[in-house]
Amino acid sequence: MVRKTIQELATFLGGHVIGDGNRYITDVKSLAEAKKTDITFAVAPYTEYVPQVDAGAVMVTAEIPAGKNTLLVVENPRLAFSRLLTLFHPRQTVEPGIHPTAVIDKSADIGAYTAIMPYAVIGKNVKIGAHCTIYPYVFIGDQAQIGEGTTVYPGAVIHENCVIGNHNVIRAHAVIGGEGFGFATEQGKHIRIPQIGNVTIGDDVEVGACTCIDNGTMGATAVGRGTKIDNLVHLGHNVEIGDDCFLIAQTGIAGSTKAGNHVTFAGQTGCTGHITIGDNTVFAGKTGITGNIKGGGVYAGFPARPHMEWSRTQAHLKHLPELVKRVKELEERLAALDK
Amino acid sequence: MVRKTIQELATFLGGHVIGDGNRYITDVKSLAEAKKTDITFAVAPYTEYVPQVDAGAVMVTAEIPAGKNTLLVVENPRLAFSRLLTLFHPRQTVEPGIHPTAVIDKSADIGAYTAIMPYAVIGKNVKIGAHCTIYPYVFIGDQAQIGEGTTVYPGAVIHENCVIGNHNVIRAHAVIGGEGFGFATEQGKHIRIPQIGNVTIGDDVEVGACTCIDNGTMGATAVGRGTKIDNLVHLGHNVEIGDDCFLIAQTGIAGSTKAGNHVTFAGQTGCTGHITIGDNTVFAGKTGITGNIKGGGVYAGFPARPHMEWSRTQAHLKHLPELVKRVKELEERLAALDK
Amino acid sequence: MVRKTIQELATFLGGHVIGDGNRYITDVKSLAEAKKTDITFAVAPYTEYVPQVDAGAVMVTAEIPAGKNTLLVVENPRLAFSRLLTLFHPRQTVEPGIHPTAVIDKSADIGAYTAIMPYAVIGKNVKIGAHCTIYPYVFIGDQAQIGEGTTVYPGAVIHENCVIGNHNVIRAHAVIGGEGFGFATEQGKHIRIPQIGNVTIGDDVEVGACTCIDNGTMGATAVGRGTKIDNLVHLGHNVEIGDDCFLIAQTGIAGSTKAGNHVTFAGQTGCTGHITIGDNTVFAGKTGITGNIKGGGVYAGFPARPHMEWSRTQAHLKHLPELVKRVKELEERLAALDK
Repeated sequence: MVRKTIQELATFLGGHVIGDGNRYITDVKSLAEAKKTDITFAVAPYTEYVPQVDAGAVMVTAEIPAGKNTLLVVENPRLAFSRLLTLFHPRQTVEPGIHPTAVIDKSADIGAYTAIMPYAVIGKNVKIGAHCTIYPYVFIGDQAQIGEGTTVYPGAVIHENCVIGNHNVIRAHAVIGGEGFGFATEQGKHIRIPQIGNVTIGDDVEVGACTCIDNGTMGATAVGRGTKIDNLVHLGHNVEIGDDCFLIAQTGIAGSTKAGNHVTFAGQTGCTGHITIGDNTVFAGKTGITGNIKGGGVYAGFPARPHMEWSRTQAHLKHLPELVKRVKELEERLAALDK
Repeated sequence: MVRKTIQELATFLGGHVIGDGNRYITDVKSLAEAKKTDITFAVAPYTEYVPQVDAGAVMVTAEIPAGKNTLLVVENPRLAFSRLLTLFHPRQTVEPGIHPTAVIDKSADIGAYTAIMPYAVIGKNVKIGAHCTIYPYVFIGDQAQIGEGTTVYPGAVIHENCVIGNHNVIRAHAVIGGEGFGFATEQGKHIRIPQIGNVTIGDDVEVGACTCIDNGTMGATAVGRGTKIDNLVHLGHNVEIGDDCFLIAQTGIAGSTKAGNHVTFAGQTGCTGHITIGDNTVFAGKTGITGNIKGGGVYAGFPARPHMEWSRTQAHLKHLPELVKRVKELEERLAALDK
Repeated sequence: MVRKTIQELATFLGGHVIGDGNRYITDVKSLAEAKKTDITFAVAPYTEYVPQVDAGAVMVTAEIPAGKNTLLVVENPRLAFSRLLTLFHPRQTVEPGIHPTAVIDKSADIGAYTAIMPYAVIGKNVKIGAHCTIYPYVFIGDQAQIGEGTTVYPGAVIHENCVIGNHNVIRAHAVIGGEGFGFATEQGKHIRIPQIGNVTIGDDVEVGACTCIDNGTMGATAVGRGTKIDNLVHLGHNVEIGDDCFLIAQTGIAGSTKAGNHVTFAGQTGCTGHITIGDNTVFAGKTGITGNIKGGGVYAGFPARPHMEWSRTQAHLKHLPELVKRVKELEERLAALDK
């Protein structure tokens, strides 16, 4: 069990204490659940509840009424909370080393301190960096490369020639570099166009469980540094996603579409192929994107429109039956006038 | 081959026979396909076709015109049909025992009569109850628990600390307890918030193929007793689903949303996070749920509205171009009047 | 490296050369990227850019202004491009033979020249044709059959009794023949209806990564010859898809629906159960199909409507707030007139 004073935590986080910094903290909890020996955090609008809780310490961005709680002022309480979760609940360490059942081609180059678990299969000329963790049933195709400190969870498939960056997390059953959906149709028959490209993924990326990222027809399907992809997402061939994006669960993006940096696709969003989406765009859940988007706004609906417009239309849509009735009444009144 | 008289089947099902109970039945078929030695069932509005079929027996809820068929009156013909499917087509039995290629930590506790097939990997302190079937490539993380009589199909991943009930069916490549999608954003960079919770699943639950249930940030993502989840469904961190719900294929539910008992989410439904849905609610396919729902009704559309309202609006929407034309005509007539 | 003259390529493709046929070609590139030793292709409207590129050769359907490029006239430039991709980038060959770690029941019948890779598990009475490639972690259940020349990528699950045709491609983690989502509800409890059918797949079919095709309740869930299915698609029990269809990523089709030949379901389309869709129908992305469709048209929206109608309605919908305002003005003017 980890046990720290609030003052020690303040030093660790680079914050300062308001109140009793000598109390001992042994765990991190949500605001609703925190008890005497727990630390928690509060951001607006939840800061008003702080006097009602009886935690050991509450992390906030500035002094507020705190009741019996010690305050720990930090720049980003949510981030500090995250760091303390790691401190109080250290991730289970995995022993480095290669399990005897892993089938590894002799030409593969495995870095130091990397763990390869039972039944992994690793192809020719594969390079895996140091400090990686490769779980059971991971298949890594010929010539694929994985950077340092990357974790690949059970059953993930990394097809040949793909390049995965450093400090990535590839979750269970993600399929990276499967052949893209490209066909030439000749007299009603669909004939496969071989997809000879690969997938390249930058550093600090996460790829969710059962997410499928197809390889490029030629060239790469690319995911930029720091982008986080949720479960069950589909990226078609030659899609390019910039840095620091969010792709939430069940989003699908068709081939050759390019998205900039800091773009958020909320859940079940769909995007047509061969379009361009600018930086800092946010798409609400279930958006259907059918054309280029300059970037910078919040969009919703299908076809995608500025969120405010979409909301206003939806509000009016609710009253469409009444509008129809009102038009009918107008017609009748006018008909009566005509007489 | 199983061979039973209709009278024997009536005794087995707790029903009674109208007609010749001595005929032999050797199979169960649909109403359209049933022949002389088959039993089938009919519920309204299909009962009117019964005189036209020439089956061995038809299960119904009450006496109806039956032509040449023997009737077998039971309370729930569909359920009786299901029981007879099991009787005439017994599920292939799996030999209990542990395959020598399974990698099982010596601290794991495996119940009696449980089958563990090739290449399963089972972690530290795992508990698996009696009469379970664990197919190939199943990964069970440290400290996970599985109740009695549960079947886990090939490639399913049950991450550490998850608790799975009795008599569950976990289908191929389901991923239970993967780390939830939680990040703190600091100067445009997304920093992972460790998710230290687990997933708890009650008894008699089914989890479909490639369905992903993320673990809780803290505490559990929870699925209640008797709930049936279809393929390719996503449940975010700390989602709570009650008892006896249906989650149909490709439904996605965002983090911290709570649904009551007997809730049905039809296919491709999406649900925002941090909301509450009351008991006995039904959502039509492709519904987008954006706010709390008291429960008890049928909803459709995006944003979700009562199904009747949504249908009425859709009907009017079809005629929107004409409505626009009618308004234009009104304006012209009024302009003419003004002159 | 493959190296051919343009004339040799013309002979291979059955086309004819306009210009210098003696130039050597060593690779295939897109129109934008092709250099002196590359061949590329151009179809309208991109043919106008041909004089601006400086490739070795450009495949076209008829003579056009070509600048410095040699033209190679072929019937279907896209298809020819696809054939040359295969010529210049031959697929990595897999050595036939059975890896010693594959667990294969002694009753299984494996064809000549078939490769079975590490950790495959193959059940009783399974038949696999000649020239197949079975990647690691493929599970093939008892009595399943696979035709000749079929490739099954890592982790794909083919449940018992399923019948897979010749020259199929089954991608990573596809799940074929999982038990369909069928329950009888008795006093609020959902009781499984055993699904005793199978899945049958014709020749030349592709099944995408993490795509789930459930087995039939009785009889088969069927996919016709030449149909191509993308990633993360769901097909419910007893769905029947005809020949030469496209099912794009994340499409879901509910139980017992039947689609004809040459039907295209674009991404994230959803289809209700127990309906019939005629030949040659195209559904735009995110369509929600709720009733029978005769076939032959292009549909969009939810509920699905002819695409033109849907587009027109969406255009008017954008202006709904103004329409409401116009109706209000009419009412005021009429009220003023009444006075």
